[in-house]
Amino acid sequence: MEADRPALAVDIGGTKLAVGLVGPGGRLLSWEQTPTRRDLDAEGLWRTVDTLITRVLDAAGLPAGEGAGLGCGCGGPMEWPAGVVSPINIPAWRGFPLRERLAERFGAGPVRVHNDAICLTAGEHWRGAGRGTRNMLGMVVSTGVGGGLILDGDLVQGASGNAGHIGHVPVDPDNGPVCGCGAVGCLEAVARGPALAAWAQSQGWRPGQPDATARDLAADGAAGHPVGLAAMRRAGTALGIAIATATNLCDLEVVTIGGGLSQAGSLLFGPLEQALHAHTRLAFAGRVRVVPAGLGQNAGLIGAAALVLPGDRYWTGD
Amino acid sequence: MEADRPALAVDIGGTKLAVGLVGPGGRLLSWEQTPTRRDLDAEGLWRTVDTLITRVLDAAGLPAGEGAGLGCGCGGPMEWPAGVVSPINIPAWRGFPLRERLAERFGAGPVRVHNDAICLTAGEHWRGAGRGTRNMLGMVVSTGVGGGLILDGDLVQGASGNAGHIGHVPVDPDNGPVCGCGAVGCLEAVARGPALAAWAQSQGWRPGQPDATARDLAADGAAGHPVGLAAMRRAGTALGIAIATATNLCDLEVVTIGGGLSQAGSLLFGPLEQALHAHTRLAFAGRVRVVPAGLGQNAGLIGAAALVLPGDRYWTGD
Repeated sequence: MEADRPALAVDIGGTKLAVGLVGPGGRLLSWEQTPTRRDLDAEGLWRTVDTLITRVLDAAGLPAGEGAGLGCGCGGPMEWPAGVVSPINIPAWRGFPLRERLAERFGAGPVRVHNDAICLTAGEHWRGAGRGTRNMLGMVVSTGVGGGLILDGDLVQGASGNAGHIGHVPVDPDNGPVCGCGAVGCLEAVARGPALAAWAQSQGWRPGQPDATARDLAADGAAGHPVGLAAMRRAGTALGIAIATATNLCDLEVVTIGGGLSQAGSLLFGPLEQALHAHTRLAFAGRVRVVPAGLGQNAGLIGAAALVLPGDRYWTGD
Repeated sequence: MEADRPALAVDIGGTKLAVGLVGPGGRLLSWEQTPTRRDLDAEGLWRTVDTLITRVLDAAGLPAGEGAGLGCGCGGPMEWPAGVVSPINIPAWRGFPLRERLAERFGAGPVRVHNDAICLTAGEHWRGAGRGTRNMLGMVVSTGVGGGLILDGDLVQGASGNAGHIGHVPVDPDNGPVCGCGAVGCLEAVARGPALAAWAQSQGWRPGQPDATARDLAADGAAGHPVGLAAMRRAGTALGIAIATATNLCDLEVVTIGGGLSQAGSLLFGPLEQALHAHTRLAFAGRVRVVPAGLGQNAGLIGAAALVLPGDRYWTGD
């Protein structure tokens, strides 16, 4: 029976490519990963993906197309549901027909591609911290800030499959930093890891190593470094305002936060809750809960599998 | 056939009560209205509503319960879908079981009560400026700022029927005025008519009459009064930021704006479009269109009828 078979899950990011087999209950059965090489052209990168998938299938003794389908999360932007991708962090792919190529090679079952933040949201709702809720925002705070929305029990696509771009909610529209998108004061411009580290350095933070990240910054904050503390407060406040915005607008029950920065604990979540409370004063909005994502390291692959394993629950495209 | 019969539409606001009969195609066939008296208690106000409905039915020669159902829009907050209402601007009703009372008296068909801004959104989508779209925000800018969301073709309810509260999106979370809800810098605190008129007076506007409104302010702006112009710029910018927020988060196609202030024309819509453009730099978001609401004076009653006439299209409650 199809429902008993595992799905292929593919997670394509600017740093690494990962492929796994996910059982019908959402358990990661096996997986492989490899760095995303920057020296490859479009076809070279595709061959890497193809090889990785083939290796996972071979190791499991599954012929191509024998699984319950293939779900793939990929960095945006993309044309949805066509799955023609142009990931910001993968310059080799511009208008690359990823869904079509995956379907040609591994397409006996359904083959579905969506934004990686949307996949993470679907995964958290299916098997993670959003389980059992009907109105949630899934967030990833990492190199970028992304998200996805589930409202009235359904994953929201929007006009072009782009609903959930919480990273581009303006949190400081007058005086904030300029975002990669070109706008002033987006959440992502304040709270993405590299922006936070750069801000800290402008405030006098001198990390031990040259490629220090927001994770090091959080650690320094935890050790009492005043700029580290101020940086976590800055990110937490921005996140709290953006979450309040989404809550007032969408009447959310729960917000899940994943990604590296979400592990900063109360240094981040304290100011977040404070800003959230200050901007959700209507009774319905004040009930929202913000929780860490539940799927951890495997979230990308389980989220990708969520596009196919629970049937059409998280998929309304063709 | 039920679909050929008109629906009863009831619109309950702080200023007036209106009742009408709306034909299956969305045309207002007949109507009556009366001011919302402030000197009545809960039961007195209910008798006014009952009398008004009875008068509309009698005039049309329809026995109670003969229509296609009853839709009612009422100021919030309310418990949804129970229709237990506590409208901010109607102090006599606190926890008033409006839906139950309407159903007892006029309940042969479905009886449904929702937030008035949600009804307006449903009406604009059904028969107004949002017709044919699948992702829209309906807004009302008047004494308050309210709204409703339609995403992927469905009216969004959210966890407690409160999705669409665009008025409480923070547009100036650091330095904005305090909102009626208690938060700092909500859209409503900046752009609702009375707040705008008060701001203009603080800037030296001296209107002809003591009870001057934002409409007079817009007229003075159109005549070249610098504070009138600045006030429209202030409201337009706040609206543009909030609409950009909703667009980035929900991937909207269209935003309809109704209510008194929406008639201010380019004085308002110019700054609105400018702020919207500045904060929607991602390609998908830049495609959103902002248009005036299409139903005009009758929007409240047609919106209330939208809860019952198109079947369950705008209703997912019990």
